[in-house]
Amino acid sequence: MPRSPYEIIHAKRDGAVLAPEDIAWLVDGFTRGAIPDYQMSAFCMAVFFRGMEPAETRALTEAMLLSGEVLDLSDIPGAKIDKHSTGGVGDKVSLALAPLAAACGVKVPMISGRGLGHTGGTLDKLEAIPGFRVDLPIDRFRALVREVGACLIGQTARLAPADKKLYALRDVTATVESIPLISASIMSKKLAEGIDGLVLDVKVGAGAFMKTLPDARALADSLAGIGRAMGKKVTALLTAMDEPLGRAVGNALEVVETIDLLRGGGPADLRTVTVELTAEMLLLAGAAADPAGARAQVEAAIRDGRGLARLAEIVRAQGGDAEAIRDPERLPRAPGRYEVAAPASGFVAGIDGEAVGLAAVALGAGRARVEDRIDPAAGIEVLKKVGEPVERGEPLCRVHEGPRSEPRAAMAARLLSAWRIAERAPAPGPLVLERLA
Amino acid sequence: MPRSPYEIIHAKRDGAVLAPEDIAWLVDGFTRGAIPDYQMSAFCMAVFFRGMEPAETRALTEAMLLSGEVLDLSDIPGAKIDKHSTGGVGDKVSLALAPLAAACGVKVPMISGRGLGHTGGTLDKLEAIPGFRVDLPIDRFRALVREVGACLIGQTARLAPADKKLYALRDVTATVESIPLISASIMSKKLAEGIDGLVLDVKVGAGAFMKTLPDARALADSLAGIGRAMGKKVTALLTAMDEPLGRAVGNALEVVETIDLLRGGGPADLRTVTVELTAEMLLLAGAAADPAGARAQVEAAIRDGRGLARLAEIVRAQGGDAEAIRDPERLPRAPGRYEVAAPASGFVAGIDGEAVGLAAVALGAGRARVEDRIDPAAGIEVLKKVGEPVERGEPLCRVHEGPRSEPRAAMAARLLSAWRIAERAPAPGPLVLERLA
Repeated sequence: MPRSPYEIIHAKRDGAVLAPEDIAWLVDGFTRGAIPDYQMSAFCMAVFFRGMEPAETRALTEAMLLSGEVLDLSDIPGAKIDKHSTGGVGDKVSLALAPLAAACGVKVPMISGRGLGHTGGTLDKLEAIPGFRVDLPIDRFRALVREVGACLIGQTARLAPADKKLYALRDVTATVESIPLISASIMSKKLAEGIDGLVLDVKVGAGAFMKTLPDARALADSLAGIGRAMGKKVTALLTAMDEPLGRAVGNALEVVETIDLLRGGGPADLRTVTVELTAEMLLLAGAAADPAGARAQVEAAIRDGRGLARLAEIVRAQGGDAEAIRDPERLPRAPGRYEVAAPASGFVAGIDGEAVGLAAVALGAGRARVEDRIDPAAGIEVLKKVGEPVERGEPLCRVHEGPRSEPRAAMAARLLSAWRIAERAPAPGPLVLERLA
Repeated sequence: MPRSPYEIIHAKRDGAVLAPEDIAWLVDGFTRGAIPDYQMSAFCMAVFFRGMEPAETRALTEAMLLSGEVLDLSDIPGAKIDKHSTGGVGDKVSLALAPLAAACGVKVPMISGRGLGHTGGTLDKLEAIPGFRVDLPIDRFRALVREVGACLIGQTARLAPADKKLYALRDVTATVESIPLISASIMSKKLAEGIDGLVLDVKVGAGAFMKTLPDARALADSLAGIGRAMGKKVTALLTAMDEPLGRAVGNALEVVETIDLLRGGGPADLRTVTVELTAEMLLLAGAAADPAGARAQVEAAIRDGRGLARLAEIVRAQGGDAEAIRDPERLPRAPGRYEVAAPASGFVAGIDGEAVGLAAVALGAGRARVEDRIDPAAGIEVLKKVGEPVERGEPLCRVHEGPRSEPRAAMAARLLSAWRIAERAPAPGPLVLERLA
């Protein structure tokens, strides 16, 4: 039985299955500062290579969860359901999903993250709305979940502090990409929210962390297994991420696209994924009897404007300019715009989401380093999506540039290399590849 | 091309071959404190799993070598040859080999280590001789190699400081057991000594780090490849370590056994390994034309007492009581002695060297932690070696206990479990399993 950090690292390095109490002891010692970073990073690298059994991942999650406060929202009537996505370029689903689910009677306590690298973050998108506050105290969060039906804030230092410390270490030691470590990181934060159920959106494809269906299924199973072991209802959808989701990439642009969606418009792929995920929340909450009924409720909330009205309420409750939801012209706008033209005629066969995401970062829409400031107006509009025909010289995308944006020639070269144009349109594939419930 | 610690760790994690300049940059940054321990330990764990190509290991060795001073002994006439063993229980070969090689005209600049865990260290054995100093300054080391022909000291802070820092980190992060990391650690120190050639004794067997011949061969090839790439002559012997070498385990006891050997006695296995390794040094130095001639010279130096006289000279030159070499009664003696009796009759089929080594540590002869003090008199005499017949009740070994020794009952249980007694004697195997030159 291992009893020192050295013995625990050594055992994992050699492929042993660790006892839950050893994992708990390790996480506790690391969080208190008794176990140094250099032992924890070696442990994480050993986990990267050796993996963890489900029981080990559960023990790791629980240890990280119990490193901080665990919210109890049981005094708030109704089912508390959240959604988590593993991250994709142009993924602004939460912005429409939270008000839609709330409009359908679900309580949505959502603690989100910021963007880093090629993917954006829900908090950054919300902050593109003038005045919007994501740093509310827990008491206010609790009150707004009760009164408005949804509240979207950032992680506080009191929830899963072990995750915050461990993630920072993994981020600089190349130990992020490990299913057990990812699972424990996500689930320790989500379980700290006081939810009854969780809908997972696991992205699959060239633009996602999980490139293949089996890998995505493994991550979904790991996440769902932890949630269920902790007594939560969990549904996972595996959704395609072979191009940016929707047409907007960049914070204010994505808020505008969300408003379009809630007005009954918006791109078809974004709409489908948003409706499907929100419908799963209704099902978990018991607010609908079957998938068709759940979908119908969500679509009705779009059609009759309740979703848009609820978004405006959320924005007002969190200090934002609710008028901007009715009049998106009030949102930040980039001073410069230009289009990038297709070099050939044909059909769009693929768009490299990661390249588009990194281009957005280079425009100022995201962060290359944690301390970078974001330009909310900067971003990219995807004018030609996969499957669409294009003539040589027609614009593929529109760039919204700000004062810190990369020069136009370099940006155009980046974006041109992200689009693949072929003679024939690719066969369209499903957006929701699998449902694990 | 990786350019940050993160990118270098990530590349190695994913199995890439690193550029020499990236490895040099990493080692330099780590040694200067610019690259933190937590990144270096994650890197070491990635190397543990992914290994290194010979060119990467050479680059790592060179970077560690160049982190400190590199001695230049070219002004000392004659070939400078050292020997390095990968470590075994009861391995006191250096104590006889250095004076024997010096007596045959080889210059032996030997920088040795201390014992930790189940294996002893040459420095601790030498310090069992009253007054013996292993912390001589480099100028004195240089003078004694020239005048006496051999000098044995400890690693100084000026030679390969990167290795000292990296080894301390590997030791607490379960990243010691990696052929490229071991190779760079050993060779960076040996190459800093200013040698022309090196004889390697790579131990193979149950009591060694390398349990199998292919593993031992891989380590020997790695070490020899580095040495040759740096322009040094290298010969490696793979020698059996299936029981303690010789009969003495414990510092003063091992000095006594060395004196026995240099007087023409001593256990056959110790004598064979010592003569073979010393003969290889003569061959590398060009002091003998062929192996038979080299062996004959070494045996003559034992027979006519030149080896013993040279040991006394070394001891005197390094501040020790040279009289103790002529009269071993002057060495530290343990206050208590007892024997452990065979529980059955038969033949000794095996002795677990690691168990005997750990028993010696529990007697006070070694260190469980770096800061532990050593009792030079404590130790174990192996009275029945592998292949020897034993009657029930006959002593298997004699324990020399000191004031800090583990109680007798526990010690006897440890030692009994180390001996395996069978009905038939095992077939005797060769001591030198392979020679790589």
